[in-house]
Order: sequence, then structure tokens, then C-alpha cells
Amino acid sequence: MKAKIVITPKKAVLDPQGKTVQTALEHMGYEGVNDVHVGKYLEIELEGDDTEAWRPKIDEACHKLLSNPVIEDYHFTIE
Amino acid sequence: MKAKIVITPKKAVLDPQGKTVQTALEHMGYEGVNDVHVGKYLEIELEGDDTEAWRPKIDEACHKLLSNPVIEDYHFTIE
Repeated sequence: MKAKIVITPKKAVLDPQGKTVQTALEHMGYEGVNDVHVGKYLEIELEGDDTEAWRPKIDEACHKLLSNPVIEDYHFTIE
Repeated sequence: MKAKIVITPKKAVLDPQGKTVQTALEHMGYEGVNDVHVGKYLEIELEGDDTEAWRPKIDEACHKLLSNPVIEDYHFTIE
């Protein structure tokens, strides 16, 4: 079983890495790129197959360790 | 329209960041975490709604700029 977690900067937070990628894409000739957000992606391999038991644990781990809830949002799926 | 890109280290490549997260989760008392992989996530907001026209461009951008194809895999969706 795998948890797939996506962590992104909140909309109101400056995302200099995203801006840099956007500028680089424009310099490479890609037109029509309106905005870029750069975040983190985590894949956690879990023992067992009890999705519902893992869900609150993964949520807690995201909140306490994996993301910074002040400036980042997260969402995850377990499958 | 948005392209959502996930970039992960190839399986054969050492992932020290993933190992660090795994160790931290174990120290926090989470049991049953078998493996952790840490990658990047990008959201690119695109003009227009021609998914098929964007697909090869995004693929090229992933290959040339956003990922390191020697040590990383990527996949993306456009929606």
C-alpha cells in the first residue's frame, strides 16, 4: 500500500522557485505559461492494507513533520 | 488548464532525503513505514485548452529543464 502526498505552497505565499521556472520556460521559448508552482511529492510505502487506519496517521505526519502548515497545503491519497 | 508534473528519483538511485524522512517517522513512533521516496511536484498553469498541443511541449520541458533524466523519472497529466 502506498500513500502519495503532494505539498504545495499556499496561494498567498511567494514562490520564488516557481517564478524562476516560469522565467526559464519563457526564455526557452515556451509561450502561454501563466503561472508555475513548485512543491514536494512524497511516496510512502506502508505495511498492511488498512487504508482507514493509516489515513489519520498520514494526516498527522503531514501536519507535524512533512509540511509547514503555516505556508504550505497538502493533500494525499492512500491506495 | 493545468499541467501537474511529478518527478521522482529512479528506483536504483540513492534517496537520502527519503531515508531521512523514514527514520524521522520511525523516531516519531510510526510503525510499518517500509520505504519513503521524496520527489518534486510542479503545477503549471497553461493558456488555452488544447491538451494535445501542450503534451509534447510539457514532455520536452520535463526532459530538458525540469528533471534530470539520468537519475529521475517523471510523469504528468494535463487537465
